[in-house]
Amino acid sequence: MSAFPVLHHHLLFLRPRLHLSLRPFSPRLRRPVFFSAASVQCSSASSSSSSTASRDDIDEVAEPPGVPSPPGSGRETQQLIDVNPPRGTRDFPPEDMRLRNWLFQQFREVSRILSFEEVDFPVLESEALFIRKAGEEITQQLYNFEDKGGRRVVLRPEITPSLARLVIKQGKSVSLPLKWFTIGQCWRYERMTRGRRREHYQWNMDIIGVPRVRAEAELVNAIVLLFERLGITSSDVGIRVSSRKVLQAVLQMYAIPERLFAEVCVIVDKLGKITNEEVEKELIIAGVTSEAVKGIVEVLSLTSLDKLEAVLGSDVEAIADLKKLFSLAEHYGYSQWITFDASIVRGLAYYTGIVFEAFDREGKLRAICGGGRYDRLLSTFGSDDIPACGFGFGDAVIVELLKEKGLLPDLGRQVDDIVFPLDEELEGQASMVASTLRRKGHSVDLVEEKRLKWVFKHAERVNASRLILVGNSEWQRGMVRVKVLSTREEYETKIDELN
Amino acid sequence: MSAFPVLHHHLLFLRPRLHLSLRPFSPRLRRPVFFSAASVQCSSASSSSSSTASRDDIDEVAEPPGVPSPPGSGRETQQLIDVNPPRGTRDFPPEDMRLRNWLFQQFREVSRILSFEEVDFPVLESEALFIRKAGEEITQQLYNFEDKGGRRVVLRPEITPSLARLVIKQGKSVSLPLKWFTIGQCWRYERMTRGRRREHYQWNMDIIGVPRVRAEAELVNAIVLLFERLGITSSDVGIRVSSRKVLQAVLQMYAIPERLFAEVCVIVDKLGKITNEEVEKELIIAGVTSEAVKGIVEVLSLTSLDKLEAVLGSDVEAIADLKKLFSLAEHYGYSQWITFDASIVRGLAYYTGIVFEAFDREGKLRAICGGGRYDRLLSTFGSDDIPACGFGFGDAVIVELLKEKGLLPDLGRQVDDIVFPLDEELEGQASMVASTLRRKGHSVDLVEEKRLKWVFKHAERVNASRLILVGNSEWQRGMVRVKVLSTREEYETKIDELN
Repeated sequence: MSAFPVLHHHLLFLRPRLHLSLRPFSPRLRRPVFFSAASVQCSSASSSSSSTASRDDIDEVAEPPGVPSPPGSGRETQQLIDVNPPRGTRDFPPEDMRLRNWLFQQFREVSRILSFEEVDFPVLESEALFIRKAGEEITQQLYNFEDKGGRRVVLRPEITPSLARLVIKQGKSVSLPLKWFTIGQCWRYERMTRGRRREHYQWNMDIIGVPRVRAEAELVNAIVLLFERLGITSSDVGIRVSSRKVLQAVLQMYAIPERLFAEVCVIVDKLGKITNEEVEKELIIAGVTSEAVKGIVEVLSLTSLDKLEAVLGSDVEAIADLKKLFSLAEHYGYSQWITFDASIVRGLAYYTGIVFEAFDREGKLRAICGGGRYDRLLSTFGSDDIPACGFGFGDAVIVELLKEKGLLPDLGRQVDDIVFPLDEELEGQASMVASTLRRKGHSVDLVEEKRLKWVFKHAERVNASRLILVGNSEWQRGMVRVKVLSTREEYETKIDELN
Repeated sequence: MSAFPVLHHHLLFLRPRLHLSLRPFSPRLRRPVFFSAASVQCSSASSSSSSTASRDDIDEVAEPPGVPSPPGSGRETQQLIDVNPPRGTRDFPPEDMRLRNWLFQQFREVSRILSFEEVDFPVLESEALFIRKAGEEITQQLYNFEDKGGRRVVLRPEITPSLARLVIKQGKSVSLPLKWFTIGQCWRYERMTRGRRREHYQWNMDIIGVPRVRAEAELVNAIVLLFERLGITSSDVGIRVSSRKVLQAVLQMYAIPERLFAEVCVIVDKLGKITNEEVEKELIIAGVTSEAVKGIVEVLSLTSLDKLEAVLGSDVEAIADLKKLFSLAEHYGYSQWITFDASIVRGLAYYTGIVFEAFDREGKLRAICGGGRYDRLLSTFGSDDIPACGFGFGDAVIVELLKEKGLLPDLGRQVDDIVFPLDEELEGQASMVASTLRRKGHSVDLVEEKRLKWVFKHAERVNASRLILVGNSEWQRGMVRVKVLSTREEYETKIDELN
């Protein structure tokens, strides 16, 4: 089954989150049943089927292609293809798509309220855009490959570098500041993929051309507005804030060379994910003295701005920036959402100033979103720098949180009218009725070759407002029968008066 | 016509449309200029630079990676990266994104009116899903590669096979018919890429589970509704209709084996694109007798159903299906849009019945959209067949047509309020005003560190409704100054009464 991903037991916990609004399927059907319906056709493949349970760990071993007879017109027996999407990717059946559309609509609405403009970039990018030496997880898990023209390309792991590229491309033709948002799919490729997906969608908001902290304050405003609109409160979620300039100041205190900055940030970001000892070891390998390591770990444990000020002194930019942000937060009215936490560093190499991430206060989930200032990214691409900051907000953790808090909306189908001919020979007449109502903007489901009982059940399932029955005797009088489904009211109306 | 619109030389005139409101770039910068601005920094690369003008044609020669020093924190001089997206792909700056969103909104609205449900599938799929032996252009231009796990994957060239996969996966858990739509990106990879794009977006509508022609009639209803909503009339555009069963009947007349059917269709679809002689040659190589070739070419030249009936007889399914479709078209009220044209075959192997494509009556452009019935696709994947039909509608040709007809909308930015502190020390107060209005759902642009003159110009540029000035003396009285930009009305209002 070479090209085909095998889904295993971890789907058991991934699925319930992702298919929240799905009506329950038979567990058999939710599982990777390769030969379920068609197994009779294809008994030779049953041995593969039995090995699926332990495939999680051996995923990366290339398998023989499983000799499928290529689909074509002349085949006689074709074994069932893998009906699952490639490993780590998702289909969006209607229920899941409604949820995704609803969530994206919230992202878009908040972006509109903040007066950001929507942009987009190719999901396929040049690899060079994402090659950085700081050892970030994101660059180690690139979904990269060589195209047929010999170019190194990637399915982008994040959006910011593409955005920076477009900013450079547009050059002086645009007036700063830019306030851009996008919702796009991002990819990663991991060797070990236990329960993790290879793609997710990410809402990004970025402000380009504002050097001062009020840009970050705007971004936090957007995030808080989103939470509020979703029904999430500041007792559910908080936003931890720090600044890369804190680390910068500590490194300066210990005379650590500036060129180690990005790498140190990336290593330090692993605190809490790997042991302190491992982090310290990596820092020492990177060239940080053990004295400085101690100093770093100590400072990063602080959660009080006053204490930070006592350590770093009051004249460092880190303190001024953070104070400014907390002062603006009061004006915006979202103070209760944000806290200072020096341990927030974020894992991307290019951040230079304020960094932040939103987290659930119960501490059950990964970061909900994260971002920061990246004033020096453009020069890594050979352009003049422009101050910038932004955040990425994934589609996975927020849905988990909404589920947990019981805040997921009930998103059903919605249809205005169901048109049903009571007689097969009236299908043309029913088409005419449907067509007329559609020209008026009604959402019309034209149903045929079903029993009336099915039609009523269907009407309920799709939340139809009206059922319009096209019957012979009514039609001859130029009429159709209308049933208003909420009130059970029923009446006849002239076809050309149907609204 | 494959599912991909072919962009040749007319990309030259496509660009100005897609970048309508962009101020002009230097032509040099619109091309893949790898070392433009930074070439001074990087004289070793100047030889590459001088060859940029002709790069379009030699694209497929693998280039040396241009020795970029990988972006990181410690770099000193970095040559300018290529600011263009990968060859054949697009960025969507705000102006282009507005156009795309507007077009997609039309697609979605028509889909809603037809009561279709939205779905989506991974843009990365298993290659096996797209391997067919009939020689289609679409399968010859697969954007395929091997992932790090040794799997053959593709950036999907079309959406129908993924949809079929999901239908099989959902199995008996869903009630037929399904009416699904999606808007997704599709990819192809060509060796020669003069002016052709490698990706486009495609709107797909599919009906699964309806064997009769009324399903096709619904699809045509959707397409016509879209055109009408866009302001396109039936004198601008027509929809040519035929049926694969026409060819099937001809092959039967000449006793050509059924297994050649798909391949013959794919070859015959090339009529008009390559010479008749070449088509005939390919047919003979495929195993069609020269007598049959003659018969095929003759029948495909017919544009009258009566004449077709005279040749094939009245008892063939092709005639019955087509008659039914034309009869339904009258009921729907879109007869003036559709014509019978036996030369319509479509280039996809899996069509089995009615096929159609929309075209501009001036004949300047490629097909605007195309589709048909594919009742036997599911069995090529090893499942039981379910009757199905659908169409794909790309985002490229329709935009060209709208441009030509002057029907592209004027899509500007739209902002409700611009909040501007007249004094830098009022930035907190301005943030409060912005935050308050945003909580009420207003779209608010908070502008700072600009001159008032700039703010007025900006207000015009973003079509702002109001300008809210936060000034010291007003603020001390608990007031702000409001300017309504359309009427030039100006007044003071209490902060908590601002709506």
